[in-house]
Amino acid sequence: MFRFECDYTEGAHPRILEELVRTNLEQTAGYGEDAYCQRARELIKEKCNAPESDVYFLVGGTQTNATVISAVLRPHQGVVSASTGHINVHETGAVEATGHKVLPIPSADGKITAQQLDKLCRDHWEDPTYNHMVQPGMVYLSHPTENGTLYSKQELAGIRKICDKYDMPLFVDGARMGYGIMSEKSDLTLADMAEICDAFYIGGTKQGLLFGEALVISRESIKKDFNYIIKRHGGLLAKGRLLGIQFKTMLEDDLYFTLAKQADEYAMQIRRAFERKGIGMFYDSYTNQQFPVLTREQHEKLNESFASSYWGQTENGGIIVRFCTSWATERVAVEALVKAIDEL
Amino acid sequence: MFRFECDYTEGAHPRILEELVRTNLEQTAGYGEDAYCQRARELIKEKCNAPESDVYFLVGGTQTNATVISAVLRPHQGVVSASTGHINVHETGAVEATGHKVLPIPSADGKITAQQLDKLCRDHWEDPTYNHMVQPGMVYLSHPTENGTLYSKQELAGIRKICDKYDMPLFVDGARMGYGIMSEKSDLTLADMAEICDAFYIGGTKQGLLFGEALVISRESIKKDFNYIIKRHGGLLAKGRLLGIQFKTMLEDDLYFTLAKQADEYAMQIRRAFERKGIGMFYDSYTNQQFPVLTREQHEKLNESFASSYWGQTENGGIIVRFCTSWATERVAVEALVKAIDEL
Amino acid sequence: MFRFECDYTEGAHPRILEELVRTNLEQTAGYGEDAYCQRARELIKEKCNAPESDVYFLVGGTQTNATVISAVLRPHQGVVSASTGHINVHETGAVEATGHKVLPIPSADGKITAQQLDKLCRDHWEDPTYNHMVQPGMVYLSHPTENGTLYSKQELAGIRKICDKYDMPLFVDGARMGYGIMSEKSDLTLADMAEICDAFYIGGTKQGLLFGEALVISRESIKKDFNYIIKRHGGLLAKGRLLGIQFKTMLEDDLYFTLAKQADEYAMQIRRAFERKGIGMFYDSYTNQQFPVLTREQHEKLNESFASSYWGQTENGGIIVRFCTSWATERVAVEALVKAIDEL
Amino acid sequence: MFRFECDYTEGAHPRILEELVRTNLEQTAGYGEDAYCQRARELIKEKCNAPESDVYFLVGGTQTNATVISAVLRPHQGVVSASTGHINVHETGAVEATGHKVLPIPSADGKITAQQLDKLCRDHWEDPTYNHMVQPGMVYLSHPTENGTLYSKQELAGIRKICDKYDMPLFVDGARMGYGIMSEKSDLTLADMAEICDAFYIGGTKQGLLFGEALVISRESIKKDFNYIIKRHGGLLAKGRLLGIQFKTMLEDDLYFTLAKQADEYAMQIRRAFERKGIGMFYDSYTNQQFPVLTREQHEKLNESFASSYWGQTENGGIIVRFCTSWATERVAVEALVKAIDEL
Repeated sequence: MFRFECDYTEGAHPRILEELVRTNLEQTAGYGEDAYCQRARELIKEKCNAPESDVYFLVGGTQTNATVISAVLRPHQGVVSASTGHINVHETGAVEATGHKVLPIPSADGKITAQQLDKLCRDHWEDPTYNHMVQPGMVYLSHPTENGTLYSKQELAGIRKICDKYDMPLFVDGARMGYGIMSEKSDLTLADMAEICDAFYIGGTKQGLLFGEALVISRESIKKDFNYIIKRHGGLLAKGRLLGIQFKTMLEDDLYFTLAKQADEYAMQIRRAFERKGIGMFYDSYTNQQFPVLTREQHEKLNESFASSYWGQTENGGIIVRFCTSWATERVAVEALVKAIDEL
Repeated sequence: MFRFECDYTEGAHPRILEELVRTNLEQTAGYGEDAYCQRARELIKEKCNAPESDVYFLVGGTQTNATVISAVLRPHQGVVSASTGHINVHETGAVEATGHKVLPIPSADGKITAQQLDKLCRDHWEDPTYNHMVQPGMVYLSHPTENGTLYSKQELAGIRKICDKYDMPLFVDGARMGYGIMSEKSDLTLADMAEICDAFYIGGTKQGLLFGEALVISRESIKKDFNYIIKRHGGLLAKGRLLGIQFKTMLEDDLYFTLAKQADEYAMQIRRAFERKGIGMFYDSYTNQQFPVLTREQHEKLNESFASSYWGQTENGGIIVRFCTSWATERVAVEALVKAIDEL
Repeated sequence: MFRFECDYTEGAHPRILEELVRTNLEQTAGYGEDAYCQRARELIKEKCNAPESDVYFLVGGTQTNATVISAVLRPHQGVVSASTGHINVHETGAVEATGHKVLPIPSADGKITAQQLDKLCRDHWEDPTYNHMVQPGMVYLSHPTENGTLYSKQELAGIRKICDKYDMPLFVDGARMGYGIMSEKSDLTLADMAEICDAFYIGGTKQGLLFGEALVISRESIKKDFNYIIKRHGGLLAKGRLLGIQFKTMLEDDLYFTLAKQADEYAMQIRRAFERKGIGMFYDSYTNQQFPVLTREQHEKLNESFASSYWGQTENGGIIVRFCTSWATERVAVEALVKAIDEL
Repeated sequence: MFRFECDYTEGAHPRILEELVRTNLEQTAGYGEDAYCQRARELIKEKCNAPESDVYFLVGGTQTNATVISAVLRPHQGVVSASTGHINVHETGAVEATGHKVLPIPSADGKITAQQLDKLCRDHWEDPTYNHMVQPGMVYLSHPTENGTLYSKQELAGIRKICDKYDMPLFVDGARMGYGIMSEKSDLTLADMAEICDAFYIGGTKQGLLFGEALVISRESIKKDFNYIIKRHGGLLAKGRLLGIQFKTMLEDDLYFTLAKQADEYAMQIRRAFERKGIGMFYDSYTNQQFPVLTREQHEKLNESFASSYWGQTENGGIIVRFCTSWATERVAVEALVKAIDEL
């Protein structure tokens, strides 16, 4: 059985473990004040071409989202998100736990448009009773989205413009950022992210680290006192160096990007195999998650040797499944899958 | 100009002011521990045929909703509401401020169905990752809804059944409860409300009091320590007797119901006038709010002498406006409006 | 029985009720957008000599405190308060409900000093692990305090200086503000309050209104979007004019101040009677609350004809009680009490 | 330089890293649903003699504390803690962030007594205005305390009795639980903890794991839906197996206990060296943290070769420092320190 259901079923890239072993008995300061974190921060600022930014390391994505959002918003403000956004659906109300509403924009593919955002804001500000409603206070995007889709640079810039129009910081959840920017279809780089967004994070958990997300903050007002806010959310790892060592290892020779690119390529091989077979994709993804719509027979046949995730059903009874590649996916597995698809 | 735009533009029924004046210099205990509150509580329990219930008085609706909801839910739970529900739209995130998500069910007319509720709950509990999502923990309805529509006794009992199935308390926002139960179409009484719901409130602000909502709680677990929770929300009025005196005055000889019935009848006269003219109603309301769909000409013509609220536009360009009657509406105003409609 | 146990046992000054009756059937906009509120705001700004300030009306003190504090603080900040402060003791955690810690400074008489405040802040900022601790983010004082004591202008200015040093807004709870500034010992005026503080409120509930507190905000950053935040706390009264009418009535010919001054004078007559008798005062109050330390016999004797509040016991077994005067206290009651004290 | 300033300056016991390397490429379910977590849970239940308990793994202590406390309390309740308790001082208001007040009991050595607790509760419940105050809703202890002190079995049972009297769950923060129960002075076992407390955790971060705390819950009402609440706090580690593998490794052959015992013995050697020299200890600790009171000369002398933490000053100018041993402390370091103390 080859497993494609998820991108966090293994531990970490072996080099990370080697580094943890190598540095294990060193004594360092806690809470991210060590030299490994310092070095990792520098590497990230370099890759982002953002020397003025601040970089923080957190353990997981839900924590990072809630921490950033609660740091940005005033009490009466909410965060705008695609209705499908992770914060709106899959974080057990972690944003609401900080006192804020998620303001959903309907989305079929995980993305929102500048037009939709503009309308939501205009509707708010033009309503004479606006202060009876939650004020849109910031925008949350996922890139790539939970459905593998990508924003183009133009789309992101368009959203940024609306953010500026209504004075809303823009925050991007990059749990799979590597798979996003290394996609053959991506025209966005980390430097673009740092320039266009006020804050975004570079996901580690799904990209070959044991755990960890690197948060890059450009806007001054968000940087202020940020470590307090991490600590308040229980997100300040005592042995912070574990995060520094992992990101340093992944970034020093661009291992992070190499692994992501490989995973994306594998995913595209799988996609193309499905397409050759006339099997449609539910979302137009060029990243590591692929969502073919199968017949019951196809689904059963593939299930015999390949684990995927069940995603839902189309109106016509098609079965949507998710195949994920990751930094850990092996060529042999992809080749076997492609062959099996070809033989459907 | 006759004003129909709102049901809280005046002060209070004169008898309430008389009672406030009459009792003004009496010295009483604070925070609802006085004899007036005691008497009002007894009257309410009688009207509700609910001797075992607890009754609390709060100043306003938003406060009452947030207080009840935060008292009922555990941290990871959310409150199910029609997407149009007051708590979801017009309370500036007061529920989220207590840490809880509103789980919206799409609604065109302000109501939700037992089927929709059942599906939302089933979808939650059947999802293998349910603990990554906010758990539906209680149900919030408005009766009448923000659009003037009413639940039938059968509909409410159907929703109750689903609430029992998933162990969710049922709470009804009765900001306009009087206009609801006195409607010619209503088959629900206060006693039904007390029997079917775990908590509901009898609105005062929009029904002839200066302010005040009377909350009736049937479920034991919600009663426990409820005064603490009111106080925590800043809702424990120091001179609580002001609330007791008002509700006592309104209920002693059923003034509350008489006034509501009159307002409903006026509203129906207006509705029928529109219908005679072939003017459709956007919502099928039999309570004090009526929502005709006007042409621009009709709108302008009526605006000359009658204030109404702008509500929106239909897809065909029809102008939806709201005409409210209330305890304070005078016959002469209604007659003038009906005449003007007839002459459109 | 003459009652001195509390300053909110009656309704309101009769002139307020007259005005409510007179204006009762006028139709006005809701939520404080009416002409009465507008006029009351202007009067308050005049009295405060603060034309640039913003004035908001809220129903009660706990609500006002929680609303202001949550509007000012960022998530990781707390509010510094005397350990005896109302927010720290008697609001059922309404501040914590908004996510913020109260940072208590020990106080015997209800006041804190600039030195204590400076030390608390210095201790925070000099601790190398400061971001593991709640950051002092604003200062809350009561004036007069819960014990009837007063800050001098010099003391308040000293606290202001420390606030500036650590960039903390200063907020004063004025639930009994009238009794404070009209005291024979007060050298502080409303204008001083508006100049020295970033926000403070002029209490109504304990000063002759049915209910209501007038919040004066000087600092721009707190004004921003403040109505949203009131609404979020369930504090935006639908018939907001009730607050405007009351404050207007009280301020138009300085009735608020006349009533407060009279109550203070009565309180001082009572204090002096106790002192003539050699009975000490537990707190050195020159406002409407007096706290004599009685023997058991004295307590029992006075109890026969005069209701007071039990406050506690001294280490030597003396019984501390509270006698309150108020806007509603009558001369005959004070004279009777003074006579009874003289005859102890 | 030998370092004694902290017990979390290194990575993890080498066997843990070996296990992480060995299992690295296995594919497992996420979020603690894997076989390693399952095995670790069984081991913990065995060690606790608590087959009916539930065990959860979280990343850090602050997160664990806030998650448990918010799961237990109703909105109007607070958590009783020693004034020195970690939640009251060093978690940046993480408990208040969940809406709850910490109710501090003064403590000089980190412990509270059953008598103090009883008095706090009695004072609450006997106050006629109790619902204006935060209700004591649960009790938080640290064992060992932040100062290295220990509760005896009798003391803990006494506190339990008061908890039962007032219906308050008892929760113990065991960030250094191993050092506590392996102390030569401890008469408490893990089984006692599981029997006496409603919830407690077995700390990993300071006891030789990379990170991780194992929470043991005995009370049914706290178990319910607990994974939702972890997720809501951002505490559900995607690769949950990392926690399972670590605890399994530490517990399978009692490595956890062996390491803790060794660290305690080293600490006692250090303590006895100080005592031989007539140097007093600020807290009476029999665990891995020791707090000698040094003269300036002694402090400077020891500083030349041994890193310790500055803790404060006594009233007489004595310098309090903290020396920590840990699972990673080497015999040679302890011998050198003892020798240096002897030679002071």
